[in-house]
Amino acid sequence: MRSPLPFALALAAFAAPGLHADTHRFVPTQFYNTYSFAHPPALRIKPGDRVITTTIDAGGVDRDGKQVAQGPNPQTGPFYVDGAEPGDVLVVRIEKIETNRTTAYSSSLLAPYAVDPASIATRIDRDAKRVTWQIDKAAGVARLTDPDVRPALTLPLRPMLGCVGVAPARKEAISSASPGAFGGNMDYAGLNAGVTVMLPVNEPGALLFVGDGHARQGEGEVVGTGLETSMDVEFTVDLIKKKTASWPRLENETYLMVLGSARPLLQALQHATTEMQRWLVADHGFSERGAASFMGQALEYEVANVVDPNFTVVAKVRKGLLPPR
Amino acid sequence: MRSPLPFALALAAFAAPGLHADTHRFVPTQFYNTYSFAHPPALRIKPGDRVITTTIDAGGVDRDGKQVAQGPNPQTGPFYVDGAEPGDVLVVRIEKIETNRTTAYSSSLLAPYAVDPASIATRIDRDAKRVTWQIDKAAGVARLTDPDVRPALTLPLRPMLGCVGVAPARKEAISSASPGAFGGNMDYAGLNAGVTVMLPVNEPGALLFVGDGHARQGEGEVVGTGLETSMDVEFTVDLIKKKTASWPRLENETYLMVLGSARPLLQALQHATTEMQRWLVADHGFSERGAASFMGQALEYEVANVVDPNFTVVAKVRKGLLPPR
Amino acid sequence: MRSPLPFALALAAFAAPGLHADTHRFVPTQFYNTYSFAHPPALRIKPGDRVITTTIDAGGVDRDGKQVAQGPNPQTGPFYVDGAEPGDVLVVRIEKIETNRTTAYSSSLLAPYAVDPASIATRIDRDAKRVTWQIDKAAGVARLTDPDVRPALTLPLRPMLGCVGVAPARKEAISSASPGAFGGNMDYAGLNAGVTVMLPVNEPGALLFVGDGHARQGEGEVVGTGLETSMDVEFTVDLIKKKTASWPRLENETYLMVLGSARPLLQALQHATTEMQRWLVADHGFSERGAASFMGQALEYEVANVVDPNFTVVAKVRKGLLPPR
Amino acid sequence: MRSPLPFALALAAFAAPGLHADTHRFVPTQFYNTYSFAHPPALRIKPGDRVITTTIDAGGVDRDGKQVAQGPNPQTGPFYVDGAEPGDVLVVRIEKIETNRTTAYSSSLLAPYAVDPASIATRIDRDAKRVTWQIDKAAGVARLTDPDVRPALTLPLRPMLGCVGVAPARKEAISSASPGAFGGNMDYAGLNAGVTVMLPVNEPGALLFVGDGHARQGEGEVVGTGLETSMDVEFTVDLIKKKTASWPRLENETYLMVLGSARPLLQALQHATTEMQRWLVADHGFSERGAASFMGQALEYEVANVVDPNFTVVAKVRKGLLPPR
Repeated sequence: MRSPLPFALALAAFAAPGLHADTHRFVPTQFYNTYSFAHPPALRIKPGDRVITTTIDAGGVDRDGKQVAQGPNPQTGPFYVDGAEPGDVLVVRIEKIETNRTTAYSSSLLAPYAVDPASIATRIDRDAKRVTWQIDKAAGVARLTDPDVRPALTLPLRPMLGCVGVAPARKEAISSASPGAFGGNMDYAGLNAGVTVMLPVNEPGALLFVGDGHARQGEGEVVGTGLETSMDVEFTVDLIKKKTASWPRLENETYLMVLGSARPLLQALQHATTEMQRWLVADHGFSERGAASFMGQALEYEVANVVDPNFTVVAKVRKGLLPPR
Repeated sequence: MRSPLPFALALAAFAAPGLHADTHRFVPTQFYNTYSFAHPPALRIKPGDRVITTTIDAGGVDRDGKQVAQGPNPQTGPFYVDGAEPGDVLVVRIEKIETNRTTAYSSSLLAPYAVDPASIATRIDRDAKRVTWQIDKAAGVARLTDPDVRPALTLPLRPMLGCVGVAPARKEAISSASPGAFGGNMDYAGLNAGVTVMLPVNEPGALLFVGDGHARQGEGEVVGTGLETSMDVEFTVDLIKKKTASWPRLENETYLMVLGSARPLLQALQHATTEMQRWLVADHGFSERGAASFMGQALEYEVANVVDPNFTVVAKVRKGLLPPR
Repeated sequence: MRSPLPFALALAAFAAPGLHADTHRFVPTQFYNTYSFAHPPALRIKPGDRVITTTIDAGGVDRDGKQVAQGPNPQTGPFYVDGAEPGDVLVVRIEKIETNRTTAYSSSLLAPYAVDPASIATRIDRDAKRVTWQIDKAAGVARLTDPDVRPALTLPLRPMLGCVGVAPARKEAISSASPGAFGGNMDYAGLNAGVTVMLPVNEPGALLFVGDGHARQGEGEVVGTGLETSMDVEFTVDLIKKKTASWPRLENETYLMVLGSARPLLQALQHATTEMQRWLVADHGFSERGAASFMGQALEYEVANVVDPNFTVVAKVRKGLLPPR
Repeated sequence: MRSPLPFALALAAFAAPGLHADTHRFVPTQFYNTYSFAHPPALRIKPGDRVITTTIDAGGVDRDGKQVAQGPNPQTGPFYVDGAEPGDVLVVRIEKIETNRTTAYSSSLLAPYAVDPASIATRIDRDAKRVTWQIDKAAGVARLTDPDVRPALTLPLRPMLGCVGVAPARKEAISSASPGAFGGNMDYAGLNAGVTVMLPVNEPGALLFVGDGHARQGEGEVVGTGLETSMDVEFTVDLIKKKTASWPRLENETYLMVLGSARPLLQALQHATTEMQRWLVADHGFSERGAASFMGQALEYEVANVVDPNFTVVAKVRKGLLPPR
């Protein structure tokens, strides 16, 4: 009944991959704990290219259970995207995120800022010890059986990447524990296969990093971890030249999304909300008051994390509710 | 495969309505702008009873377009529930919320605390003027056509009550603009027909108030209003004797929910998260560490409002993910 | 070199006490735990009058060590000020605050929101037990000798009132634990004898309450109490008719002060800062940009409390830095 | 009557300067906009040495009015301190901060986060334009005469450094606009000559940076700038080996101070408060409960800034109130 600009066409409009697009199989051997312009490119790719690679877990352990780097969140990359310049937007379509080993770990206490501080003083459990989950890909679930964790838990897999980021602005080097306007450790449970991530480019080549796979994660990441594990990852990249985006924008079949990251939590929400209004006005035919009136009655939010150095809030608009163009 | 305690049975466990339950048709003639122990009961009801009544809109206008009270959020009630005493939990099952006139109003600017403050200085639109939506119950939508709001908007109806509350603790009288541990103006878009609301009882008879119907509302209520209109409302009440609940708990077919209200936004989330853990431990068979481990990987959040004197965050657990008992 | 409007003259300008001013010796027999329009006046006074009275401690214990009311912060009053109407400002000059017994109590742990939440988990001391201080008026100090408190402490007396408030707006009844635009439990260590407190009038007669004396208190009240004790109190009242004040304003020989109360802490600071700018523009000859430029280089802050339901921040301007008029 | 460890002796205890101490006259030619381990040392110095140098203003203009670097806050340094290793504390005694030109600039509007957001929408002045102050060192004042700023302003000079920092932990490179655990752009009006700054060492040599001199600044830096100007600066350095400090500690003749930096404002206060308790317990003979009891009745706070990427709060203890050892 309505026809917003079809998603596939929208992507096709700003790039012409296909003919010369390459597929790269990249085996990472070095990992980084900061997002920084200063790291040498691990691989040069161009708009339209596909990368098939892997990520290790947040603690630096790979698919074989081997410690190959130090935490937190050692990153695969950086990928240098030819033609990317400050003022562009890098488009990363996540084609695949799949667990590649049979275990994941999580913490087992609610994190300090996620709960009433007075409740911390009266806890029975005081050790945020790691517990190990079994990943059963055939059944599509992760299971936790641990004498201290009652009852035993079985939860569906929903693989995601905690970290997708580029080199930050202002020549800053930011810990891979932190999210920001450059992406980074947003820890958003909805960053799954099928999502397109749009990030502002701050440095030539953008310098794309990925890492911190979770077999599953609740909103807020309130124990401070998802189900931390190693992943097989595939993504394609593209560029939108001379395009302003102040915060990471995501899109899937159902939603337009903006991820704001800051402390306090309200400020993360303010960033996401403000940027969503800008997006609706710039690209979706809304007047400022039109976008506000629409958002007032149609906006959704997710709380991605309340445990990282910056918290992350997702402002979401259901594409099916957008007025026809 | 799994069988959590069926919802219907759970309710049956703490009351035996039916035999002597009455249905009350209550036509409100007086409305209140505070939640307070000091207001005289408008109607006495007992556990198991059903109330069929109406609410007027947030500005005090009724179904006939007549100003019958002053804003904000004039309340229908209070309903005195026989047998309710401090230390009990009042259970209010919302049976029906239906718009009963053809218009609703909303504000049309993003509220000050919902956006980056720097963005306020550069706004084109500066007047948060009311706009009028047409409610088309047959089509199940609300429509907004206003020259300043581009494009025209059509959104599905999703009727809700902004306010469900009881007399607060400590003999406080709290404005009907505010949410809190007593419920009140939580402005939660998911407070629809089919939801059961559980509220701590602070005063004899609980003193239940309802009001502030919205034909629809986005998460956060970021323009400061939903689609404000008058409603036909039905609910049944019940009691859980000698039961501790520190914050409003909601339940529907799909979710267990806790609504924390406070400023800052993080504190609202902390209240909701902490109370959800208490609930899982007390009533759902979890150890403290079990609840934390589960919540870390399964919790969901909604941001009910970021515009009221207290903000409201909803912590949610999908009942289908609860381990079998 | 400069001559701002002398403080004494400024007060003289809006009232003409003296000729008919009365002095009331008021012995309280009933105490209140809410600020509310609903409490019957304890005494009617008129602008220019002086009241000599007493306050009991935050837990309801009087000068004789007798429990005569319940906490928190049972209030002396309310005093009905003839002629006070909504839209006026009530002026309360604190003439005297003096301890009238030999002991005070305090809590002995840092309050949950005053410290890093992670530090709560690693505390040695877990019981916020009351400790008793000896008040030595002759020496002008309070002393604490307790085996758990090392070393013994001796601190100068600096008597203050935690609570000075009027009936709130919107017919709310607010706990005497809370501060707000109506004053209340601001817990400001600088609310000493010699300070003039200006409060917005919300109800006929204003309904002034006082209570919660502290023999001394640190900024922030980070243990959740001052040195809680009973007091001999004297104050005079006056009115400024048809005067807007959104937040409590204080003045002493040295400073103009505004007390903003809210959560989060930043919002309390925002209220105080915004109101100070309004005050400088309205009464002190500043343009908006002039007030901003002055405040940028001359403003001071105190953190009154970070433990009450609302936190309180004091924005201060040194009168000696104000430009000559 | 009491004798805490004299300040001079305390410093003497951890270093033995004098015999081999050098005085370095350092003329900076390169300036940095990040705190980072990656910048090459500008000068190697050793504990006990004195450095006589200059800083340029926050916009990169030097004493001669010449633009020699880009903002924000271009830093003089880094100074590599021989022997400094991670786990040590670097001690920087500020011997002199003196303005060296006749003008300073400031912004002239209250910053977005410093005021009620609703007040931004109703401002008369909307352009945060720079205004120029005249520095009169002979009279000890700065004067502002600008047609838009009424009335004209004259304020005493109180020279300070907005920035004193070392290379951050975790190989991060942080903008010179930001404060943190490493010091940086704390914008504390009390960082004057006579203050000793103690900073945790994260990298070999510590890598000390200084910059962002203000001829004067109000608490909060609520217009987003102090009186920004170039400075003549002298400091001496020392080391405390194997000493834990989680946040910058300052000391002068009157106060012990801790500067916590974070958003939200409360978190900055929490860091400062928690670290002050640690300091009192570790170095000043307090039990945990003793430190809490003392802080509850004796702590003071300053709000250094509410405009930088992190806000800064100062927790202060008057040394004259410390119990005798």
